[in-house]
Amino acid sequence: MAHHVVVVGGGFGGLEAARALGPFSVQVTLVDRQNYHLFQPLLYQVATAGLSPGDIASPIRNLVAEHSNVEVRMGDVQRVDLANKRVHLADGELQYDSLVLAAGVRHSYFGKPEWEGDAPGLKTLDDALELRRRVLMAFENAEREDDPQRRAAWLTFVVVGAGPTGVELAGAISELARFTVANDFRRFDPRTAKIVLVEAGPRVLSAFDTGLSGKARASLERLQVDVRLMTRVLDVTSEGVKLPDGFLPARTVMWAAGVEAPPLAKTLGVELDRAGRIKVQPDLSVPGHPEVYVIGDLASFPLPDGSTLPGLAPVALQQGRHVAEVIEARRAGRPTAPFEYVDKGIMATVGRASGIAQAGALRLSGMLGWLAWLFIHIVFLIGFRNRLVVMFQWAWAWFTYGRGARLITGTTPVPPASPRRAPEPSAAPESAELHG
Amino acid sequence: MAHHVVVVGGGFGGLEAARALGPFSVQVTLVDRQNYHLFQPLLYQVATAGLSPGDIASPIRNLVAEHSNVEVRMGDVQRVDLANKRVHLADGELQYDSLVLAAGVRHSYFGKPEWEGDAPGLKTLDDALELRRRVLMAFENAEREDDPQRRAAWLTFVVVGAGPTGVELAGAISELARFTVANDFRRFDPRTAKIVLVEAGPRVLSAFDTGLSGKARASLERLQVDVRLMTRVLDVTSEGVKLPDGFLPARTVMWAAGVEAPPLAKTLGVELDRAGRIKVQPDLSVPGHPEVYVIGDLASFPLPDGSTLPGLAPVALQQGRHVAEVIEARRAGRPTAPFEYVDKGIMATVGRASGIAQAGALRLSGMLGWLAWLFIHIVFLIGFRNRLVVMFQWAWAWFTYGRGARLITGTTPVPPASPRRAPEPSAAPESAELHG
Repeated sequence: MAHHVVVVGGGFGGLEAARALGPFSVQVTLVDRQNYHLFQPLLYQVATAGLSPGDIASPIRNLVAEHSNVEVRMGDVQRVDLANKRVHLADGELQYDSLVLAAGVRHSYFGKPEWEGDAPGLKTLDDALELRRRVLMAFENAEREDDPQRRAAWLTFVVVGAGPTGVELAGAISELARFTVANDFRRFDPRTAKIVLVEAGPRVLSAFDTGLSGKARASLERLQVDVRLMTRVLDVTSEGVKLPDGFLPARTVMWAAGVEAPPLAKTLGVELDRAGRIKVQPDLSVPGHPEVYVIGDLASFPLPDGSTLPGLAPVALQQGRHVAEVIEARRAGRPTAPFEYVDKGIMATVGRASGIAQAGALRLSGMLGWLAWLFIHIVFLIGFRNRLVVMFQWAWAWFTYGRGARLITGTTPVPPASPRRAPEPSAAPESAELHG
Repeated sequence: MAHHVVVVGGGFGGLEAARALGPFSVQVTLVDRQNYHLFQPLLYQVATAGLSPGDIASPIRNLVAEHSNVEVRMGDVQRVDLANKRVHLADGELQYDSLVLAAGVRHSYFGKPEWEGDAPGLKTLDDALELRRRVLMAFENAEREDDPQRRAAWLTFVVVGAGPTGVELAGAISELARFTVANDFRRFDPRTAKIVLVEAGPRVLSAFDTGLSGKARASLERLQVDVRLMTRVLDVTSEGVKLPDGFLPARTVMWAAGVEAPPLAKTLGVELDRAGRIKVQPDLSVPGHPEVYVIGDLASFPLPDGSTLPGLAPVALQQGRHVAEVIEARRAGRPTAPFEYVDKGIMATVGRASGIAQAGALRLSGMLGWLAWLFIHIVFLIGFRNRLVVMFQWAWAWFTYGRGARLITGTTPVPPASPRRAPEPSAAPESAELHG
């Protein structure tokens, strides 16, 4: 029997590990809950109707088809049994010789999981479609609403967390309101929509230099995003968010404020960090289990300064390649090398033609930062066909401000709204179902 | 107050009526359950992963934005009150001076509505995404299944009804299995998949000449579709279909066998035909109610030979334009003209590079029929951007046999399957949930 490597997760890290293991004489099983690999950095574009799900996702089977020793298994991993070298799925189990955990993270509500229903996050394609549905339905509901206060609540969008996802979401929603749907409604002006970006820390995009971070904030404010720094969310309901200075009525709240490891991490019984991520050794293996590796967002990789590597696609990709080498080295009886991250820099975008990029001593902002962002994201987008389609969609959107994927799909196309001609606005029943 | 026209339904007929009313001095409210207009003739392409939802749908608001007298209202029409000229929505009501009903039809199970869960139809975008999920999941489940008989049931796809939708679905699924995913699985050869097209009548595509119909059948058989004519479905379960010659195990069954009017039609209290469609006068109005019109699939328009006009996009489009003229004429006190359908012909496609078209004395088949089909569908696809994207997707698929939208989305990504290592196949519990 060939050495069997089980890879859990088909994101950047897991997919790269499986492909890098392709040339070696091992048998690989790549397990994912979904049948597709997702280009997560562009997920906010699906949530804001700029791109279709198919543009940023590719079937995993297709991406590993050239490697006949890689098998793909759709499945939900529930538990890892380190002692017996077994992975338990919802519908079966897998025996491994080496295990690569690349299961990623999910959004964290800092001990308030009950907020999730009213403030969904953005990690999966289904999350993105749900956010898209809520954002587009908010405008539809505003059109059906006669009471000015309740209409204003439908036209207020709160994004919690000013990391890259939160900043990108806020910028894109503002553009959607101010340009894309500007002429689509008859009873209100979509340009009056309010986008509020709430951040507990002192600046947006805190991973960047203060200078770039300030420029990003200025870009957001040019897009009329109301940026509230040093502001903590105290409560979230279907009616809005409670902030230190009072209650902000808002029917659409999005969560981009933090991540935590999935419950799977706890089942290993090894040491975790504060976010629940698994602490790894310099060669990415789990202490005491040289045959088990953790990569990508799920790994807590210590840096000399006491911090850990951030959850970025380049980190996951490099770790995926490294872990394949380590597995092959161990199998061949060679010593394993420690992982070293080659920092290629970071970048983010703030709406149309404005972005920031930081790499080594290089600092880019504005149009140049945006072009750098565009180039890198197009080049790394998985699948040549997707690259062409996305380029076309963007070029189109650039010239027309149109968005190709403005569809409200899902099981609740028409949520209950207060009746158009309700005589007593205050007596109308509140609808919580849209946020259910 | 301007004359208020309420148009129910944003399909081909309703959208065309609203746009044709745009230049007149009337106030129009276009009501639809969805926020988008759907190019239904290509819906089967979404169901078989060739196109993304965004490629064949456009926001209704956008399509009528140039007409400031047209208002769009998302809403679910439940009942029409002819006496009081009122349309009741799930969340309000609308008063009309003229009413245009263009609500379309849904699939009919001939008195067996309980079959719908196991044999869903294809009328909406959500239907298409559900079919896509089932078709792609069937291959995933086949890969997880060790028992040859149960695997064969996952690899058997039954399409009920050999009209255009059924024929297009069967052809596209066969191509998906034989080309697109041919190298994606390790435990079975997708080319062994069986596609069975069941038709109660004596031939496929019976709206066409016998000659063209025969050619379509030959094309299907070249694609290895098992065409069973004069075969009635006696029962549908989650395990397969009961046919006159025995039970056919198949975990994926699709319904394309007939249509019926939605319950809305009954609420008018006027005469309906056998399919529940509303019988209309020569000017498309409802007998006794010259201010109420029915167009498109929902209308039963009598022809001199005793038959009725078929449910086709060109019929709906021409009726939409006609009804706008009739409403304007009546408002101006001019006599109304009877509707006359200008038959532009019919066409259908059977997989890659094979189609049939029939117009007047013209008969096209094979590559030529397919090119005619392609040209017409691209030209009439609503939205210039969509035309370009769809053309690109098709050109890409043509050269690579790839399909860009092979994503399994939805709320049940991993259905329960029988455990991989089940020792007793016959003792494993049957999973009905996938079809729930």
